[in-house]
Amino acid sequence: MNIVLLSGGSGKRLWPLSNDIRSKQFIKIFRKEDGSYESMVQRVYRQIKAVDADATVTIATSKTQVSAIHNQLGEEVGISVEPCRRDTFPAIALATAYLHDVQGVSSDEAVVVCPVDPYVEDDYFQALKSLGEQAAKGEANLVLMGIEPTYPSEKYGYIIPAAKSQTSRVETFKEKPDVKTAKKYIAQGALWNGGVFAYKLKYVLEKAHELIDFTDYADLFDKYETLTKISFDYAVVEKEPEIQVMRFAGEWKDLGTWNTLTEAMDEPTIGEAVLNDTCENVSVINELNVPVVCMGLTDVIVSASPEGILVSDREQSSYIKPIVDQITQQIMFAEKSWGSFRVIDVDEGSLTIKVTLNPGHSMNYHSHLRRDEIWNVTSGEGTVIVDGMEQPVRAGDVVTMQAGCRHTVSAVTELKLIEVQLGEEISVHDKQKFDLES
Amino acid sequence: MNIVLLSGGSGKRLWPLSNDIRSKQFIKIFRKEDGSYESMVQRVYRQIKAVDADATVTIATSKTQVSAIHNQLGEEVGISVEPCRRDTFPAIALATAYLHDVQGVSSDEAVVVCPVDPYVEDDYFQALKSLGEQAAKGEANLVLMGIEPTYPSEKYGYIIPAAKSQTSRVETFKEKPDVKTAKKYIAQGALWNGGVFAYKLKYVLEKAHELIDFTDYADLFDKYETLTKISFDYAVVEKEPEIQVMRFAGEWKDLGTWNTLTEAMDEPTIGEAVLNDTCENVSVINELNVPVVCMGLTDVIVSASPEGILVSDREQSSYIKPIVDQITQQIMFAEKSWGSFRVIDVDEGSLTIKVTLNPGHSMNYHSHLRRDEIWNVTSGEGTVIVDGMEQPVRAGDVVTMQAGCRHTVSAVTELKLIEVQLGEEISVHDKQKFDLES
Repeated sequence: MNIVLLSGGSGKRLWPLSNDIRSKQFIKIFRKEDGSYESMVQRVYRQIKAVDADATVTIATSKTQVSAIHNQLGEEVGISVEPCRRDTFPAIALATAYLHDVQGVSSDEAVVVCPVDPYVEDDYFQALKSLGEQAAKGEANLVLMGIEPTYPSEKYGYIIPAAKSQTSRVETFKEKPDVKTAKKYIAQGALWNGGVFAYKLKYVLEKAHELIDFTDYADLFDKYETLTKISFDYAVVEKEPEIQVMRFAGEWKDLGTWNTLTEAMDEPTIGEAVLNDTCENVSVINELNVPVVCMGLTDVIVSASPEGILVSDREQSSYIKPIVDQITQQIMFAEKSWGSFRVIDVDEGSLTIKVTLNPGHSMNYHSHLRRDEIWNVTSGEGTVIVDGMEQPVRAGDVVTMQAGCRHTVSAVTELKLIEVQLGEEISVHDKQKFDLES
Repeated sequence: MNIVLLSGGSGKRLWPLSNDIRSKQFIKIFRKEDGSYESMVQRVYRQIKAVDADATVTIATSKTQVSAIHNQLGEEVGISVEPCRRDTFPAIALATAYLHDVQGVSSDEAVVVCPVDPYVEDDYFQALKSLGEQAAKGEANLVLMGIEPTYPSEKYGYIIPAAKSQTSRVETFKEKPDVKTAKKYIAQGALWNGGVFAYKLKYVLEKAHELIDFTDYADLFDKYETLTKISFDYAVVEKEPEIQVMRFAGEWKDLGTWNTLTEAMDEPTIGEAVLNDTCENVSVINELNVPVVCMGLTDVIVSASPEGILVSDREQSSYIKPIVDQITQQIMFAEKSWGSFRVIDVDEGSLTIKVTLNPGHSMNYHSHLRRDEIWNVTSGEGTVIVDGMEQPVRAGDVVTMQAGCRHTVSAVTELKLIEVQLGEEISVHDKQKFDLES
């Protein structure tokens, strides 16, 4: 199975866990059998591999997510990097060209496109496989997944199938309706549009060439910024007469809001939390290393992260975006390809961060124009290079770097540093990267 | 006026702002005219000085509070340090002996004893002055303040005066009643016992000598640990027939719970907080440097500090103590006589703190057996001494100290450090102090 996972943009709907650089799919909130936690993207990737160990998984995403994807899924996963956001048609066209020109997938093979964040069981991925197999038969140009509705939702588009069979021609599509209309659709046998579709690679490649003037993947990548924003639904699906839909009756949830996310949690709290016995229907997700105490609350969600603290009534939590848009908060935590960092102190003229490098990983070789830095190694072993001079470091070592000095650090074992930055205009943009002469 | 302020013990009733080492009276939550915030102890001290600039103020407290008191009130204030907690009779006896033997207050002068944390206006301190003047007349051995009740509270003891005059003999005392009984007392003209009393110094000194075998202040201090815990009410007041009460009809609040504390705040939020328009009667006190967002909450108190996060229904907040007693949280913030520190990172084998030294102040000269330390100076100017070697430091300087090495730092201007501690058994108890040879 060739599967393309659409990894959506950053968002604040799950603030303070998601923010401008940390998308909800990277938040580790699902408990695994071993007691540790995994993110949506890790869960979906694991489930795909469980259903089809040979599946070729490609994640279509912006470059801001590349570090987090490698950090969470390793280096093996394919990534079709969008140089900027241009909606789903350009993204799917680029990913399809990537599969063909970079991964060598043949034009006749089926591709399944799926959002990165459905909360589902393994049967869903079995259904994706069937979807791909159906597309490979060539009975239609597109095969969609139709999810059997469990309630008259206003949140989803509806697909009206021509028949009640497992696979059927699509009669028509309906935009997100109101509840009354949704009830009518469901009475007519409508299915939710789960945003999943399968096609033969050449079909989308031809559509792409029809609508965009490009030669190959590299050319499309280069001119990506010039493309018009347009959705795959609008550019392709709505104009295509030959579409089939396959029913899926298994569990399917879209965890886009705090309310739906916390409902999917196996337990009411993650992280340090104490709830007294007068709390009812309270969920706590606490990423800080200090406790959250809740008393006498009903239907409340509490989430604490290095970015901030949310305390919200369950229903109200879906209105978070405009509230959080008012806040201008510097990024306090980020996952990088080499590990992660967390801001631990902000002051006038200084910024202190905790850096964790994964074993075998290195930062870029870089310098800063307007700040000095001090590395305090607190655990692990590694190597630093400062202005071309290499030296081993371990817990207790201190490395000082003046502004302008080129530096990098690589981890032999997991390496942790307290990095003290000193300067009047500390900014993440003050960074020059260099190639390391080896 | 000689005034003794009883500065009560640590407590968790205002967790996470109060904890084992930070008492509620040191939390800065009252907005001053210049927009900055002051604590209960600062507010009370400022009010006393406004009413009587020559007042001799002595704070009776345990040694754990001495640093915070000097930090908040400066070096001028008198402190009667209790070597350990032995309830109010030994504490008042010790403070009285301190006034007599150390401060040279004469036996015939009046002393007024008052809790450190009433939330009152200046008229209250005028009343304290009158209380002292009344005690000096010698009409009775004790003069108490009787607060005119505003509602039938179950939280206070009641005083039944013999007459309705401003000053009257006390007929009898009543323990904390239920609401019904409280109503009956109030109908009889009862007053709340505000825990304030005035006496001639020699009266309490004689009582102390009757009940405790000691020679002078130094002797009493030395044997303080051997004394029996007993309250002043039980040891003295209940046995004394010659007691007067003076009425006080001004504003008086006891800010002992989150509910009463937040009611006394001038605004609903302190610190970074955003409340959406569906919040009603929500108070936020946020000491962290990231925002708290509240949505759709009613009658809720949110407090965030380096120690943890409380989210509580207003009514429920008074039941916090047993909940917080379950938590074993290391101290994350402390005020010291030289400034303050805050824990900013805790990891296996390392602890990182942010240290702020006030201008002209120094740490003790000390060493640690089981940890190395690194100072990263982030702002200000000062001097460090490491194993007897003195050198100036400023922002950007790094000082490394191996376990066993003696060290101190003093601030010329306000000095800030990031201190990285490295070792397997990092503990606040691993500290040896030394005299500095000058």
